[in-house]
This record gives sequence, structure tokens and C-alpha cells, in this order.
Amino acid sequence: MSTTRVGVLGATGAVGQRLIQLLDPHEEFEVAALSASSASAGKTYREAAKWRVDTPIPESVADMTVVETDPDAVPDDIDLLFSSLPSDIGADVEPEFVEAGYVVSSNSSNGRMDDDIPLTIPEVNADHLGLIEVQRDERGWDGALIKNPNCSTITMVPALAALDEFGLENIHVSTLQAVSGAGYSGVTSMEIIDNVIPHIGGEAEKMETESRKLLGSFDGAGVDLHEADVSASCNRVPTLDGHLENVWADLAADPDPADVVEAFESYPSVDLPSSPDQLIEVFDEPDRPQPRMDRMLGDGMAIATGGVESTADGIQFNCLAHNTMRGAAGASVLNGELLLEEGYL
Amino acid sequence: MSTTRVGVLGATGAVGQRLIQLLDPHEEFEVAALSASSASAGKTYREAAKWRVDTPIPESVADMTVVETDPDAVPDDIDLLFSSLPSDIGADVEPEFVEAGYVVSSNSSNGRMDDDIPLTIPEVNADHLGLIEVQRDERGWDGALIKNPNCSTITMVPALAALDEFGLENIHVSTLQAVSGAGYSGVTSMEIIDNVIPHIGGEAEKMETESRKLLGSFDGAGVDLHEADVSASCNRVPTLDGHLENVWADLAADPDPADVVEAFESYPSVDLPSSPDQLIEVFDEPDRPQPRMDRMLGDGMAIATGGVESTADGIQFNCLAHNTMRGAAGASVLNGELLLEEGYL
Amino acid sequence: MSTTRVGVLGATGAVGQRLIQLLDPHEEFEVAALSASSASAGKTYREAAKWRVDTPIPESVADMTVVETDPDAVPDDIDLLFSSLPSDIGADVEPEFVEAGYVVSSNSSNGRMDDDIPLTIPEVNADHLGLIEVQRDERGWDGALIKNPNCSTITMVPALAALDEFGLENIHVSTLQAVSGAGYSGVTSMEIIDNVIPHIGGEAEKMETESRKLLGSFDGAGVDLHEADVSASCNRVPTLDGHLENVWADLAADPDPADVVEAFESYPSVDLPSSPDQLIEVFDEPDRPQPRMDRMLGDGMAIATGGVESTADGIQFNCLAHNTMRGAAGASVLNGELLLEEGYL
Amino acid sequence: MSTTRVGVLGATGAVGQRLIQLLDPHEEFEVAALSASSASAGKTYREAAKWRVDTPIPESVADMTVVETDPDAVPDDIDLLFSSLPSDIGADVEPEFVEAGYVVSSNSSNGRMDDDIPLTIPEVNADHLGLIEVQRDERGWDGALIKNPNCSTITMVPALAALDEFGLENIHVSTLQAVSGAGYSGVTSMEIIDNVIPHIGGEAEKMETESRKLLGSFDGAGVDLHEADVSASCNRVPTLDGHLENVWADLAADPDPADVVEAFESYPSVDLPSSPDQLIEVFDEPDRPQPRMDRMLGDGMAIATGGVESTADGIQFNCLAHNTMRGAAGASVLNGELLLEEGYL
Repeated sequence: MSTTRVGVLGATGAVGQRLIQLLDPHEEFEVAALSASSASAGKTYREAAKWRVDTPIPESVADMTVVETDPDAVPDDIDLLFSSLPSDIGADVEPEFVEAGYVVSSNSSNGRMDDDIPLTIPEVNADHLGLIEVQRDERGWDGALIKNPNCSTITMVPALAALDEFGLENIHVSTLQAVSGAGYSGVTSMEIIDNVIPHIGGEAEKMETESRKLLGSFDGAGVDLHEADVSASCNRVPTLDGHLENVWADLAADPDPADVVEAFESYPSVDLPSSPDQLIEVFDEPDRPQPRMDRMLGDGMAIATGGVESTADGIQFNCLAHNTMRGAAGASVLNGELLLEEGYL
Repeated sequence: MSTTRVGVLGATGAVGQRLIQLLDPHEEFEVAALSASSASAGKTYREAAKWRVDTPIPESVADMTVVETDPDAVPDDIDLLFSSLPSDIGADVEPEFVEAGYVVSSNSSNGRMDDDIPLTIPEVNADHLGLIEVQRDERGWDGALIKNPNCSTITMVPALAALDEFGLENIHVSTLQAVSGAGYSGVTSMEIIDNVIPHIGGEAEKMETESRKLLGSFDGAGVDLHEADVSASCNRVPTLDGHLENVWADLAADPDPADVVEAFESYPSVDLPSSPDQLIEVFDEPDRPQPRMDRMLGDGMAIATGGVESTADGIQFNCLAHNTMRGAAGASVLNGELLLEEGYL
Repeated sequence: MSTTRVGVLGATGAVGQRLIQLLDPHEEFEVAALSASSASAGKTYREAAKWRVDTPIPESVADMTVVETDPDAVPDDIDLLFSSLPSDIGADVEPEFVEAGYVVSSNSSNGRMDDDIPLTIPEVNADHLGLIEVQRDERGWDGALIKNPNCSTITMVPALAALDEFGLENIHVSTLQAVSGAGYSGVTSMEIIDNVIPHIGGEAEKMETESRKLLGSFDGAGVDLHEADVSASCNRVPTLDGHLENVWADLAADPDPADVVEAFESYPSVDLPSSPDQLIEVFDEPDRPQPRMDRMLGDGMAIATGGVESTADGIQFNCLAHNTMRGAAGASVLNGELLLEEGYL
Repeated sequence: MSTTRVGVLGATGAVGQRLIQLLDPHEEFEVAALSASSASAGKTYREAAKWRVDTPIPESVADMTVVETDPDAVPDDIDLLFSSLPSDIGADVEPEFVEAGYVVSSNSSNGRMDDDIPLTIPEVNADHLGLIEVQRDERGWDGALIKNPNCSTITMVPALAALDEFGLENIHVSTLQAVSGAGYSGVTSMEIIDNVIPHIGGEAEKMETESRKLLGSFDGAGVDLHEADVSASCNRVPTLDGHLENVWADLAADPDPADVVEAFESYPSVDLPSSPDQLIEVFDEPDRPQPRMDRMLGDGMAIATGGVESTADGIQFNCLAHNTMRGAAGASVLNGELLLEEGYL
């Protein structure tokens, strides 16, 4: 069995650390390169990263030397790069890596809505990988760049995809998002103890656009956005991990809640190492899912749903996913697994 | 200047303590009777109430003797009773007090949707007090029973009332409610630290029905419910006080956000002691209002709003009110002030 | 390989649920009986316990029928009972079980300081099991009753035992205890959000007496309490799990911090299934151990220490243990393993 | 009545904002100058400060222009400067202001232990102001520089001063400190939700040295440090405001707890505008004081105590003060009032 050598761009940040955690060990991937800012280059990973994940720093990477985030600094024999770069840096640097021939599975928000960049959740729209050909044609790239969506988008889209059989129309969604989504220092304790912040910059826009691309159809040349209108309201709450969302989906058909539960539970997963056996789990108890209790469902990669009820125009329900697992690092790893499976590496 | 003698039914509970706090002192009312369960009767209020409000127990009531919640135990010269009884007890006992001639301003949820019981927010539907005549005719009562709505309902209804000029249609609302709304022991720390509970028993139903009664029109004989369809999703979050709500209001007209802000800010308050000068305040900053920062606006009696944006079908915005002030104890006191103003005492 | 059949008394409470979690599976023990109050008797465990642990309810016990906490209701072929009964009930019922011949490893606080009841931490004072003979002689019991100490006591005693080589004298200890130590409903959210409670009823006394028994010497007939004076101050803080303690230990000798670290790290563990390889771990970083980061060290059974510094009269340090694992359910299981190892079953 | 014109150095930070809040209005002082970093100079205070206090920004200062923290930039007719500069900047800049003739009441930690700089709590050691003469002699200064102690030191020192009549010997103290003590962004939410940090850089040393200077005696030329040995252990907990401390004080005499309560309650306050009528309040309830309930006692300027009990060598008790009021901004204002009263302005 051969192993795919992978690198992590932006390895010292919060999502970078989660990537390291998820890749140690991984049945297909072996971490062989770590990049960070020039201030960290030359240090061991142990020195460069202030390790904050609640499992110990993997010994296999702790003494690896961090290199600069530059195609010239990363070894040539790396087959796949996971990118958790800040989006402004990613916008500059990711294309340089792809031009240099690397395949990049990126969590960074830059370019997600570009016409020729696949934005994928493997269980939902694996066929959008076809955009890689378009991308190579248009940009003259050897490598490939694919993106996973924003954490709050991923949380609801699998359930919406499962509802599409009922004629998905307008969506209203309110989010209760964990502080880890803003990075380790993104939310101060003074801001959030005994408090809620009813706004997350750019988040509603991401949910409103990315979801329509994910649910759209690929016709060989591009993606037609889904026609649903999506309106989001995003809140930061005092939880550590796990984004919870209240969703209303207007539907053309008039399914019973039991039909919706059936659609959720039968929505297929995929056969990739990081994908859960059951993609969408449904709780009967009306007070579930809850972030602290249910975020680790399916090793942090399942979508937990509950509170399914009929409304005048469709259905309402709650959904929950682990924002740094399923919603970020795990999403990138899963896209990497899909790229391997589909022969892009 | 004469003072109105008032009593508090259920004086030892969380809302009862807030009532005591708000009435000490009050320019129109003087607390002259306190009732609680038979276990507390005969004790001083200091002994009976485990005082948990963050201002000291008022000396004027601390040594008052608590009586049983029974019309025979309460002095006859009380002009007005505030009730914060548990709803099952309120359902039994409040009618006995009214039959005995007392006027009762109640926060308890029982009977709020009864055809002949006024459910009022003085700034919104003071004319619904006319139901008192209907009530007296139908039930043969000498006294009167009026209700204030549920805390989560009060938070959004003034803003919805202000929107009615634009043709209020369907409403979606997601709530982020403070733990104090469940009473002092209603939410355990194990349930809510690092967590959210996406369900509050009966709460969505209250919002969906009470709001239509509050926004409905009184025709002299009864209230026609507003035709808007209201769909609510209610969450408990780790905040102490202050319910924050994300609201989408579909509107027949297509106002600009600036028009909506103008409608909010110009919505009239009333001239009662506990009503704020400005009923609905609007924040420009997109990350406001926030529970901890803004719940005491207008001495805890104002409605804070923000995040006003256009949607495909109308408008979205956030609103916030202090759930035990404007949303419970303060609401009952304000209704009491209205009863006095309108000559019912 | 034969398996020991065990039962859990008080199986539906918070510690009872942790016991069920730890025993599913266990390499030596098989859960064969569950008791609870008469209100739960006859129900399946799934129905009787509102399962609140963050791993799913074990299928092997979910459908087991709960029996009353009565020797007549528990099968005779149970070799060992774990007791997590409320202490007032334990005081009445545990002796009845022992008289009926059962061996009971109990977490309940009743009887811990009784002269003939072993209070044991296997790594610290396994020899105190000798009190079982005394107990049987004095009480005419066939079975045996042993206790583990209070969670806050267990957290510091291994480190104090390691210091005894330096001549342990007076102890000052301040605790920062998690809410789970009070049981699922023991601390309300209104009490603890943005707050600390500087008192836990009876807790300081337990620490001050139990630690002296644990560190005392068994002479074949009884335990001589250690002569150290222990003064504790106990605080409840808004953490879910993990008791952190600031300890000052006056010492007759004047060891360097490095000597103390060496004494901690070389303090021996025991070879029992639930004991960690390394009993006392020492952090170099001055800001560790921290409850959320370090409570699961050694699968929740290790003692984490740090901040070792010299003082005028000895040493100061911090220690941390998982209060419902090492401090309660895990402590009882470990004592059960010791009883099996030592031939008492 | 003439008013003293004052300025605030470092006016945009967390303590600076509290200073502005406390000085608006103040019966003796009028804010006439605001300084901040060069990045803020030239802006209005409203623009320069991201106002985060939970009362509205005072209109009287909102439109004042911020100047650079430089003696040349501050008007000459300012009688008193309050300094809440970062300590490294304060160390450089405060002497420049004093040399230029200004009187500075500083909260910054630089220089607190210098031999000729008064470190004062007006109720405890107002006579240490005599060091100003020493300071002027030695440094050739026209102005004066006085300091208030660190927030965690102030919390315990008044009670220790009250105990000195019993022969104060060694002190052990464990702190549970609020996040606001680290400044607005000092503690991230990821660090502190469901967690405690058992170390605050430099804090223990401050408590151990500053308390001995505060309790020391001034002999006309310098301060003899109190001979008590103080050993501190400092913890950050998830509270917003209010430092709680568990204190053990060894005493030469053997007072009853009642004697200690009497000593606390009779310890004199001073007659300055910001000093509370009762300096040290004592709670009978063993679970008080609590940060959220009691931090605003005496308008945030009183010391709340409780849990007074005898130990083998003296006494143990808990104390609490509002860390940004009594412990920082309020402490500086109070020192300013003392300077005015004593004729230094």
C-alpha cells in the first residue's frame, strides 16, 4: 500500500492544528511538509505552533521543520496540499502553488465562488470536481484547486440537499455559532461571557451564496446556482465547538415530518475514510441536537438534525455540525480523499 | 397625592422578586401584601424569599409577613394584585381573586389566549382593555384580569407593530433566550455551559399565537387575530438576562431599511411611569444589540433593535429586550399603570 | 477467563451513569444488576435514567431492568457492588448489603471516617484494605465495605503522599471545583454564569479529615491519622469537569522544586486495569494544568500537577484531576479492581 | 466652588474607559485632556476609543480631541493626571510628565516598589504620601508621582490591615480573578470557557511585594516593609468583573472569628468622594461574597468579606473587590482625591 505525501499550508493556526490532528495518523495520507509565515520558517513545528488542541501534539510532526509558504520552499514530491491560510494570503499564494503543479484542497474562503473552482462536499456534489478540467483549460494550470465551503454553510447543506426531492424553495436560517469558528483569538472573553453577538462579518453572505453553488448543477462547463433564495442571520454564542442552526425550508411539495426524517436518514454517505457511515442523523428528542452533546457524532463528521416540524410553506428543523472538524479541517481532508479516489493525485 | 395599595401573588419566585425590586419605590404603587405558598405563609418575606436579585432586599418589604395565596388571606383594601404565580396555580386561583373583586395584572401564562381576557402591551394595544367589559359581562366578575404576554413574544411584537404600516405578512423568528427566563433553577449549569438547547417547551407556540392576538384588532366584542403566519424556533443560550431574536418579516410593501428604521424610531411610547421615552431604539452597528450590553436600555423597558436589512420578501432585523424586566415583571407593572390611568382601579 | 459480575447501586444518578460508562466494557467486570429508587424499579435502564453522559448509552445495559436498592432485589450471584447512592441512603442501605454478604465499593460519603472502614486510593494506601478483617470481626459481616474519598480529596492526596518523604507538615489548599461535582442539577446556571461560589457545604471538612486518614498508617488494628494540619477553602467555578487545586505544603526538609518534580514523577502507580501508567504528571508550563485541557490525562485517571515552586516553609503547586472519573466513578472501579486483585471477591 | 481640571493618560484602554466613566461627573474633577497613542491623536475620543463600558459614552468627553501622550501635547492648566498607561510606556513617560511639573496618580505597575514612590490606598496608608517630599528631594521633581497597587493586592490589603492589631504573620492567598483584569482582549474565549488558568504572569509577585509595602510603616524617609511573608497563587476564572480571594492569615494573637468580624467592620473608611461609607463589609452567609452578586457593593469601592473561620495558626476568610473599580480606575481616582485633600494639587 502506497501512501500519499501531503503538506499543510498555514499549519500553525487553529484549522492547521486540527488538520495535523486529523492526519495523525491517516490511512492514506502522510504529513511531509508544513508551512507557515516567514516568522515561523526554520523552527520545529513544536516551537512554531502554540499547540492548543486537546490531544497531545503528534510526535511524528512535532520535530518537523516548518518552511515558508512558498512553492519553492515546499518539496516537489508532495502530492497534495491542504490549505488553511488566511483568505487574503490564500488568494495570493494558492494560485502560485497550483501553477507550480500542486493539487490544493483549501479551506480558505478566497475564490470559493469563482466560476471554475470546485466548491465541494463529497457526499453532496462530488461531480463538481469536473470543474478542474475547466480550470486547467482556462488558467493553464497543471495542478488543481478545490475548496470546501464555510463551516456554517456545510452544516445545513447536506440536509437541504436531502430536501431537494421535495422541491426546495426559499430558505431562512439562523445560526448559533461557536467561538472556535473565529480562530483561537477571534472572540475575546469580554465579548462573549454572558453575551451573544448577533453578527459575524461576511458570514451570512457566504451562507447565502455558497449554498446555492453547492446545491447547483454542473453541466460540464460550469455550475448553475440553485434557484433557492437563502436568507441568513448569524450569531456568535458562548460555545466552544459546534454550530447549531435553525432552518426553515419552503418546499414545493408538502411532505410530512416523517417523510423528511426518512429523506434525511436515507441520504447517502460516500465511501471515503473520513466520511461517516450515516451522514445525517435525526434526533427524536425535541431538545437535541445540542452542541456539547452531539458535535462529535460520527467522529465529528456527521450532521445532526432534529426538531423536524411542518410549517405553512414547508418544513423547519435544526442542524448541527462540528465547525472545525466537518466544517473546516475535516472538510478539507475529505475533499483530499475524494481527489485521491477520483484519480486527481 | 394618594397611593395605590398593591399586592404581589407569588412574591418569592424569580419574577416575584423582580416585581418587589421594581415596586421599591414606585411613584404610584405601594406594596401592601405578599402571597406565596402555604409553606411560606406566616414567615417574613426575608425568611420566605431566598433573595437573589443583585440589589439588596428592600427594607420596606423585608419584614412584611407573607400570606397564603388565597382571597381570604389578602387584605380587602388592596387595589391591584400583580400575579407571578406558576401557570397551573394561576389558572385555579386568579379567577377566585377576580371573583372576589380584585383587579389582577398577571404575568402567568394561563388564559392569555382566552377570548375575553385582555393580553396587552400598553404601547401596542391598550385598546384591548375594552375586553374587561366583555369579561365582566360574561363571567359576572367585579374585578378584572389582564395578562401580559410571554417574554419572547414581548421582545418582537413592538417592532412588528411598527412594521404593520408596510403590510405585515409572514414572520420567521429565531430566539436566543437567557436562562433567567426559566426561573432561578430552570436551567442547570450542566445543561448550558458550552452548550445551547434548541427547544423550550411551549415557547414557540406562545410566540406564534400571542403575537397574533397582540397585533389583532378589537372591535368592541372581541379580538380578531392578525392574519400573519408566525413560525418560531426557540433556543436557550448561556446568557443571564436578555432575549435576543432574529426576525424575518415578509411585507406587502417594499420599504427601504431606512424606512423601517424610521418606523421603529417613531413608534410612539406611552406616558406611563415605567414606559421608556423611546420605545424602540435602533443600533447602527451591525453587531448590536447584544444582551449584556443593551438589556438595560430604557431601564430595562426599551426594545433594542439592529441589523435591519432588506430581504427578497420584506425585511430582517434583530431585537432584544430584558426578559424579566420588559418581558415579565416590568410588563405586569406597566399593565398595572395602564389600568390605573384608564380608571379601572 | 472468568468475569466478575457486578452491580451498580444508584445507577441512574450522575456518578452512576459514569460508572455504567466506565464499565462498558471492562476487562474484568460485567454489569449484571442496576438499582435505583423504587420509582425507577421495574423500568428499563433506558427509561429510568435520563442519560446525560456525552457518549451513547451502552446497549448492553440499556434494556436491563432496574431493581430496587434492596438486598432482596439484587441477584445473589453478584460478586461486587459499586455504590453511588446519596449518602443518607447509603448510610442506611450499604450496611444491609454487606450484612447480606455483598462486597461494596462505595463512592458515598457516609462512613468514610469510621475506624473500621477502609478509605483507599490503590496507589496510595492499598494496605488499608486490612481494615476489612477488623470490620468483619467487629461487625460480624460476611461481605465488606470500602470507600473511596471525596473528589477534591483524591485530587491532592497522591501528590501529598509523594511529598511525605520530605516530612509533610501543614497544608493549605484552595479548590476551584467543577459543577459536575454537585450532580447534574446541583448548581443552577443562574448561580454560576459569570460567578464563583466560595463555599461548598461539608467539602472543606472532608478534605481536612479524609486526607489525614488516607496518608495515615495502618498498624493491623486501625489507622493512625497523619499529623499534618490541613486547612481547605473550597470554591465552585464555571467549569464542567475537573477540580483544580492550589496547594501549599509545609515540609520539614527543604527540597528544591526539581526534587519535588522528581518525587511526583517517580511516585509509583499500580498494575490495575484503570490505573494510569504514570500516576502524577508534571507540567513545565506555568499555566498548566488546566481543567478543560488536562482533565482527560491518563483516560481521566491521572493526577496533573504544575506550578511547583519553593515557599518560605516548603512548596506550593497546583494539581488537577477529573472529578467524576478519578474523583468518583473511576475511584470506585479502581477500588473494585484492587479488591479483586487482593482476593476479596 | 472651583473644580480641578484633570487629564487621563491612556484614555482609550479598558482602565482608561473606566476612568472616564467614573469621572463623568465627579464632584471635584473635570476631564479636560485625554491622551492615547499617536495613532489615536487628533481623533475625537468617540472615534479613538471603541467604547465597551456598559453605560453610554459620556457626551462631555465624546467629542474631545485626543492628544498624544507627551507633556508638550497636554495643556499646562491640568492639575492632575490619571495614568492607565501600559507599564512599559508608563515607565518611560510618567517621569517626563512629573519632571514637567504634573501630578500623576497612576495605575500602571511600573515603579510601584521604588523606594521614593508612594504606593497608597487612602484608607490604609495615606501617610505614605510623605514620600512625595523624598521623591522631590531625590529626583528634583516639581510634580509628584503616586501609585495605586495591583487589583489583586488591593482586594486583600484592607482586611489584612484590619488584622494587624492581632499580630499579622504569614499569609497564604489564592485568587480567582475576573477576565477584565487582563484588559479587553487579554483573555480569549477559547482559553477560558469551561476552563481555569492557574497562572497570571507577574501577579503573584505583585501581591507578595506590594502588600508588604502597603502594610509597612513610613518613618519620614522611607517605608519599612511589613515583615509578613506572603505567598500567592493566582488563577483566572470565567467571570467578567470581581476578584475573589481565599486568604489564610497567621496571627500572633488568637482572636475569635467574632473578633475578626468586629475588626473588619470597624476598620475606618476615609471622607473622600469615592470612598465607601463602610470600607469592609462582612457577610454572614458562608457562600458570600460572590463576584456577580457583590462586586458593586459600595458603588464598586467596598471590600466584601465572608467565610471568617479560625485555623490552627490564625484565621481564614474570603474577600472580594471590583477589580476595575476599587482595583484600578477607582483606586486612581481615590488617590487623586487624597492628593487634593492633602494639598498636593
